[in-house]
Amino acid sequence: MIRNQQEEVQALQDTIYVIGGKWRLPIINSICNGNKRFREIERSIPGITTRMLSRELKDLEMNKLITRTVYDETPVLVEYESTDYCKSFGPVILAMIAWGKEHKKKIIQKS
Amino acid sequence: MIRNQQEEVQALQDTIYVIGGKWRLPIINSICNGNKRFREIERSIPGITTRMLSRELKDLEMNKLITRTVYDETPVLVEYESTDYCKSFGPVILAMIAWGKEHKKKIIQKS
Repeated sequence: MIRNQQEEVQALQDTIYVIGGKWRLPIINSICNGNKRFREIERSIPGITTRMLSRELKDLEMNKLITRTVYDETPVLVEYESTDYCKSFGPVILAMIAWGKEHKKKIIQKS
Repeated sequence: MIRNQQEEVQALQDTIYVIGGKWRLPIINSICNGNKRFREIERSIPGITTRMLSRELKDLEMNKLITRTVYDETPVLVEYESTDYCKSFGPVILAMIAWGKEHKKKIIQKS
């Protein structure tokens, strides 16, 4: 079977496009790990600002990767949850975490 | 075992940082697939310009992800090859290609 190179490149670039930038995957990972509240998610991602997290969550909700549920309590409770579609990122995220950890070991060995 | 969230986020962001942008992974993938010559690599990646490919190849060589060998022939023959370290990206790339293909099916179904 001839591998379709152009189709693979396209699939790869589509994925890179959806992942888009520094914060998207860490947020998806955090929510997939069970963090539901804004502050929980924020605390689990070192360096993210409230503003960036807020913007990314809106974007992820628009793209159907997460759901946002508002419970009518006092004070109002808002919960974020990952959709099944979002969970399909699992293998990508795990492969990237594994690579990042190996990469760090390599860097530490060298220095 | 408690999962170390911050370590995972760091590993994820390190990987995103090394992957860096739209072209890096498609180039790595192309070279891992056996393309060795500049023009071969260029042709396998739709939309990339000669200038971008040239810049990315230099960067990948500096980071020890590929090697560049010049053979003293007429005309001079230059070959690019991936290092073992580069091949460690394999699982990440395959997971991303698989996700991108599924994503495309999903998008086509909806429209």
